[in-house]
Amino acid sequence: MKVMVGGTFDPLHDGHKKLLKRSFEIAGRNGFVTVGLTADGFANRKSHPIRPFEVRKSELTEFLNSAGYSGRYEIEVLNDRFGSALESDFDALVVSEETFKTGVEINQIRKEKGQKKVDLHQITCVLADDGKWISSTRIWNGEIDNKGRIVNKK
Amino acid sequence: MKVMVGGTFDPLHDGHKKLLKRSFEIAGRNGFVTVGLTADGFANRKSHPIRPFEVRKSELTEFLNSAGYSGRYEIEVLNDRFGSALESDFDALVVSEETFKTGVEINQIRKEKGQKKVDLHQITCVLADDGKWISSTRIWNGEIDNKGRIVNKK
Repeated sequence: MKVMVGGTFDPLHDGHKKLLKRSFEIAGRNGFVTVGLTADGFANRKSHPIRPFEVRKSELTEFLNSAGYSGRYEIEVLNDRFGSALESDFDALVVSEETFKTGVEINQIRKEKGQKKVDLHQITCVLADDGKWISSTRIWNGEIDNKGRIVNKK
Repeated sequence: MKVMVGGTFDPLHDGHKKLLKRSFEIAGRNGFVTVGLTADGFANRKSHPIRPFEVRKSELTEFLNSAGYSGRYEIEVLNDRFGSALESDFDALVVSEETFKTGVEINQIRKEKGQKKVDLHQITCVLADDGKWISSTRIWNGEIDNKGRIVNKK
């Protein structure tokens, strides 16, 4: 199956890793995954500083190549929330509980453009040890590490 | 992956077949799919008559066995909208655009029960030749056949 997924992946945490793992599982052995990675100009709208695209791309590539997934992949630069997902021929978009709404929006725009709608696979966000979602913002704030472990503040 | 999916499957149409195909694709080669099939007492709440459970089960089993899916499966009797999905240990629930809300509800109840939430894979409904969804009700009404072809009324 052809699957699309996207994010800023900074830093790459266990929630992202689940999102990517599922994308390759769904794509299957002969599948293809397009991983959208936000461009710096777009990513910098976040509430905390973001490392440069090439640094994030390098971390992402290293993870994907070491994870042993059987499907092939490409990394696409995302200059907005949609990237090529509005026109591409693919089967399923992998989203989180936070980004499901963007998936619905993408399908709505695809329909208006006369493109077939795609499946939306919503993963359940990974919880940190305190039972709340792991997020880059919480890691940046120093509350948790990238595995969701509580950081003991001194 | 362990996947759950459910329905009344009467008659089994191209929309159901996509739902089932995706369930096995997502489950993967070594995966397991639990297919919930509504009991007669529950299914009969529909707006049109439903064939008996054993007839529907036989048609479903015949399709699943002939489809060549690699994963294993079991058929579970559904006496309500949830079946064992509230307590079972599984990874993803496959739903349609019509039943996504039930998936969200299942996750909410699972969370209240202290169970992990599961992924929700929403397939895009298959369209009939007139661009509207294929549905059992439309087939029963004689508008379309189980492949979504328009039935010429005499």
